[in-house]
Amino acid sequence: MTLDDLLAVSALDRTLEPALKGAIDGKAKPPGALGRIEELALTLGLIQRRLKPVVDRPTLLVFAGDHGLTRSGVAAFPSSVTVAMVDTLLAGRATATAFARAVGAEVRVIDAGVAADLSDREGLIHAKVAFGTADASVEPTMAEDQAEAALLAGGRIAAEAIANGADLIALGEMGIGNSASAALLMHRLAPARLDACVGQGAGHSPEGLERKRSVLHQAAARSDATEPLDVLVQFGGYEIAMMAGALLASAKAGVPVLIDGFIGTAAALLAVRLAPAARDYCLFAHVSAEAGHRVMLEGMDARPLLALEMRLGEGTGALLAVPLVRAACALLSEVAELSDVLEAAR
Amino acid sequence: MTLDDLLAVSALDRTLEPALKGAIDGKAKPPGALGRIEELALTLGLIQRRLKPVVDRPTLLVFAGDHGLTRSGVAAFPSSVTVAMVDTLLAGRATATAFARAVGAEVRVIDAGVAADLSDREGLIHAKVAFGTADASVEPTMAEDQAEAALLAGGRIAAEAIANGADLIALGEMGIGNSASAALLMHRLAPARLDACVGQGAGHSPEGLERKRSVLHQAAARSDATEPLDVLVQFGGYEIAMMAGALLASAKAGVPVLIDGFIGTAAALLAVRLAPAARDYCLFAHVSAEAGHRVMLEGMDARPLLALEMRLGEGTGALLAVPLVRAACALLSEVAELSDVLEAAR
Repeated sequence: MTLDDLLAVSALDRTLEPALKGAIDGKAKPPGALGRIEELALTLGLIQRRLKPVVDRPTLLVFAGDHGLTRSGVAAFPSSVTVAMVDTLLAGRATATAFARAVGAEVRVIDAGVAADLSDREGLIHAKVAFGTADASVEPTMAEDQAEAALLAGGRIAAEAIANGADLIALGEMGIGNSASAALLMHRLAPARLDACVGQGAGHSPEGLERKRSVLHQAAARSDATEPLDVLVQFGGYEIAMMAGALLASAKAGVPVLIDGFIGTAAALLAVRLAPAARDYCLFAHVSAEAGHRVMLEGMDARPLLALEMRLGEGTGALLAVPLVRAACALLSEVAELSDVLEAAR
Repeated sequence: MTLDDLLAVSALDRTLEPALKGAIDGKAKPPGALGRIEELALTLGLIQRRLKPVVDRPTLLVFAGDHGLTRSGVAAFPSSVTVAMVDTLLAGRATATAFARAVGAEVRVIDAGVAADLSDREGLIHAKVAFGTADASVEPTMAEDQAEAALLAGGRIAAEAIANGADLIALGEMGIGNSASAALLMHRLAPARLDACVGQGAGHSPEGLERKRSVLHQAAARSDATEPLDVLVQFGGYEIAMMAGALLASAKAGVPVLIDGFIGTAAALLAVRLAPAARDYCLFAHVSAEAGHRVMLEGMDARPLLALEMRLGEGTGALLAVPLVRAACALLSEVAELSDVLEAAR
């Protein structure tokens, strides 16, 4: 597949919209009484092009990558924590894997660009483009061919998951420093003032946050890129690029995609700027506590399903929306018709 | 069990609070990064008095009852719809039963006071106190011994579910006209202006809503009751009384209770006015689209977990919070320690 192929996402087919709306309104409940779940049922039906959408095999893809920006002190944890968390994910002892069991989702972990040799890790999907990105405050984070390779790898990995039965793709990430990269992407692609895009990430002292802000201003001053592929090259991360690629491939396959928090939404923003039609295949799971997330969501006309003051990443927020997706499917597949209930009540 | 026994709810034991907070903060994530899920984990640990709370058998109890107020035109549907929906629930074809399968919860349906003979219904828990309540706009809805009987029956049914293994009780209801009864309870027990308590219920034309309002003013003018048992006698419903009783028995047993929407919250308010300590055993699942629900929640210092613009009842909102409860348990039971991750990262 070429990048042009990956970007050729079709507009959402709305042919079934009247039939889906009729089916939802006809269920044994007052019209509209299920609020956001009814909207979700409509969206799922449109994406899957069926009156009874099915989500039996939700799959979380957790892309891991490191960021050269950490060398300039944008993160509260060292890059080595990325490796330790990849191992924790592989061992099933991370929050995302615990939540995945709680909601009945599968998890795959991908080395998109971790700054350590993980070739001996079993169960890991090996797709490393490089040992971490370059430091965005000094130089472009990646070469254009690396950006393309990461997008295509993400697309390939999502396509494989779908070929193996995944009918809902949730996107997660692990990467010390990636809220800094995501802030730069938001700044250029939303676009928004840089200061509105910079938040606590995994946690900072006031001084740490000030340093993060200062380093990101330095990075932003280095390039005036606004074209999406160029923004990715200048400021992006491999895990973010692969999430965008995975989203595009899922959209092409007619598979709904659950978007997680700040970094996941930045990846979705990148994907949507590359292929605007991809927007309609996104389900925005939650609004996180990270500064800027709400603004970025509003800019994409996205209303998140959950607001739980979370800011962990890993796909944890996306996972907690999986049961809402299942409920929306169940509404269309399993609930009686109102007309039958009213007939029985006569 | 006597009513005094049922009302003897112990204050929440906070002995484990420091240990639970330490355990939550020590998990492999930045402190506080799971927001409301961390609060939920703490609450569950305190209620269950264990550092690793467990919710394996969530059980929804759906109490059904009819309301004499419907004869004065407060509802958009006839009372016979209550029976038809009980049958739909028993057949597993209601929204609540569909959602219960989606989140892995069991469902029991209870005849608390349906205005029809349901003695031939298999699978139904038969606890009928009367064939519907009296019309609150004309007379008290029930006698004091009926109110007591309903509270105690709810307590007995919850205790039986818990004895059979339920470790989380979700409360739902079905009863045409019960948002009108709940509005009167809120009005007297919150307390709040009656007009702030009256909403669409299952749906109304502007004229229908005006009639509902007018009938409820007539009912309120009939009695100045403010003492909780008296308010129940004057304005309550059997399903609402049983939900309150079930909440009290669950609290006594140290089992957390998921509260659903407007009617469920009115039942919780009744329970809390009868036994204030019961408040701490409540998990408020969602804020519904019914007018007054947000105000009633705020009055109970309750922050709902979900806001999905739902207004169906049946326990549907409570069910959608079950996966959040499971996730909170998984956090404490299954996630690695941050110290181990940082040690591995050294």
